[in-house]
Amino acid sequence: MKKIKDLIASIQRIDQSWIGKAQARQNRLTKPPGSLGVLEEIACRIAGIQQTLSPSVDHKRVVVFAADHGITEEGVSPYPDEVTAQMVANFLRGGAAINAFAKTGGAEVIVVDIGVKSPIPVVEKIDLSIRFSQKAVRRGTRNFVKGPALTEEEVVQAISAGVEVAEEAKAAGVNLIALGEMGIGSTTTAAAIAAALTGQSGASVTGRGTGVDDSTLTRKRAVVDQALRIHQPNPTDALSVLQAFGGLEIAGLVGVCLGAAAARIPIVIDGFITAAAAALAARMSPTVVDYMFAGHLSVEPGHSVLLHMLDLQPMLDFRMRLGEGTGAALATNIIDAAVRSFVEMATFESAGVSEKQELASGVVT
Amino acid sequence: MKKIKDLIASIQRIDQSWIGKAQARQNRLTKPPGSLGVLEEIACRIAGIQQTLSPSVDHKRVVVFAADHGITEEGVSPYPDEVTAQMVANFLRGGAAINAFAKTGGAEVIVVDIGVKSPIPVVEKIDLSIRFSQKAVRRGTRNFVKGPALTEEEVVQAISAGVEVAEEAKAAGVNLIALGEMGIGSTTTAAAIAAALTGQSGASVTGRGTGVDDSTLTRKRAVVDQALRIHQPNPTDALSVLQAFGGLEIAGLVGVCLGAAAARIPIVIDGFITAAAAALAARMSPTVVDYMFAGHLSVEPGHSVLLHMLDLQPMLDFRMRLGEGTGAALATNIIDAAVRSFVEMATFESAGVSEKQELASGVVT
Repeated sequence: MKKIKDLIASIQRIDQSWIGKAQARQNRLTKPPGSLGVLEEIACRIAGIQQTLSPSVDHKRVVVFAADHGITEEGVSPYPDEVTAQMVANFLRGGAAINAFAKTGGAEVIVVDIGVKSPIPVVEKIDLSIRFSQKAVRRGTRNFVKGPALTEEEVVQAISAGVEVAEEAKAAGVNLIALGEMGIGSTTTAAAIAAALTGQSGASVTGRGTGVDDSTLTRKRAVVDQALRIHQPNPTDALSVLQAFGGLEIAGLVGVCLGAAAARIPIVIDGFITAAAAALAARMSPTVVDYMFAGHLSVEPGHSVLLHMLDLQPMLDFRMRLGEGTGAALATNIIDAAVRSFVEMATFESAGVSEKQELASGVVT
Repeated sequence: MKKIKDLIASIQRIDQSWIGKAQARQNRLTKPPGSLGVLEEIACRIAGIQQTLSPSVDHKRVVVFAADHGITEEGVSPYPDEVTAQMVANFLRGGAAINAFAKTGGAEVIVVDIGVKSPIPVVEKIDLSIRFSQKAVRRGTRNFVKGPALTEEEVVQAISAGVEVAEEAKAAGVNLIALGEMGIGSTTTAAAIAAALTGQSGASVTGRGTGVDDSTLTRKRAVVDQALRIHQPNPTDALSVLQAFGGLEIAGLVGVCLGAAAARIPIVIDGFITAAAAALAARMSPTVVDYMFAGHLSVEPGHSVLLHMLDLQPMLDFRMRLGEGTGAALATNIIDAAVRSFVEMATFESAGVSEKQELASGVVT
């Protein structure tokens, strides 16, 4: 825990002077000032994070944390737990959506088993663009309507595993991290976390996840409300929230957020589960939000609640609800274009392009 | 004109049976059905356009048509006409936003001079990823508050030049075309077209373009309303609208839309000016809309009016207002991810992933 506290203490605010310098450069580039809208803001923030007017996001990595959730015993998902392990095998084979999305953005994918319950099926031919990391803390969380999902030690171990993943990324020269996850039952856990952090009811933050029917949705909401009554976690204490509900992948992603911010690597949040991790990390260190971008808005109702808490505007809105890091990976393309245009565009002077003409009288010719 | 009429006659509706087959495949892929939201719809439509369950958008081309507008005599832009030529040189040097955006998406860029008024500055070192095509019909349009912007012959010539660009793309194996443009004064022309086509007032479709001040905006709106009174073009006759207002780049892009649809190449609309071209093409052949995707929503008020007329939902919304094809180029990344995941993902059977379990009683376990 001391190591995590030291890490948090090392996270610095973005240096606003770099953002100011970046904005000044935006106004010299060969386009009407402000005409790239949100993309100008993205590039300026990346410049501020990286403390340079030559920022780069040319080494992108999607970190997909996989783990199981004991709460599935309560019948909150139409998919069996085994699907978590089966999907990890699918990632390794290159057959999942995140594999295709990462290729579009030229991102590498690291799959981290931080608590998958079922044996991961043998993969005969691993996709060469994928790396697998074994950091399991335990084989799934405990059922949180029967007691705490994790011990404090397990939470710290999972966060530390995430910090390691961020440190490995830093060592490899990664300059943009997209958060991803896989775990049957995870939207129920994320809903409990979102309700605990924001004070909202279970009903308002619990959605259909992979697509549950009405009766399962009703049960899921009841499970979340029941869990809140049982644990009554302190919303300002992220560790106790993680002990109460899990999940291991969420704790791992909290560690990635803290480690990435400490290493000055920008972070792209994906959907509801990664937003729960981002929100918990923000409770531990509000400064991490300086390093975060919201990749997209998912259809899960709790996602917008958490993004609102983080005061982040999602870049994309495609009614997606898959997870795996798909929305975050898509958004890396946008960040890439924002940064690349900021760095590569000519200025009015260098290109010999005439600037806006405004006469003293205010009349434009 | 006969050639254009024959081309229009050759444009076919999308075969709905391919869309149905594509939807069936979406439901077999290793993700909850529907969980990729809008991206599933995009991939299905591309499959329908290309009539295959192995669609591809691996050869993307941004076509940037550049031309000047005689209406700039009325003081509707704070930038001098020379900027059109200067920006063409900037494209060729690789220094503009579209160059950077196209690189992010792995798209090639073709710049077409279809009516640039000023001499294009000599470019010592042309960016190797750029191609330039000289198809000037005349050196800018005429001032449309003083008479028609173009003759019928000039309109037909410009449309035909655009058709050629589409045919060249087809011959090169291009499977996705993004529309782009450059031309000082173009938003005033597009506003006149939008007002003529939709019956809206000049005020409601005229925006700040590159960022004009209040007095220029007032003048710009008055110019549009004056032009509508003078010409009173028949909104169902796209050719007469183009004769009245121009522009040459818009007519060229009309030709690209018609040619691409005839060649079964999907088209991505950029901002307000390209949407005006798309809307005119749709008036000539409503079927072309089957082949169109709206890349983004610009801040120009007339853009949403035209997208509404076309019944297209924009993919991105970043408060951009640059043109050049930047929003369309960004959107090609989304289409790429949609198509790539559709083609490359494993099915539940092939990956050995368990499917959703629903018992006969409706109880989910």
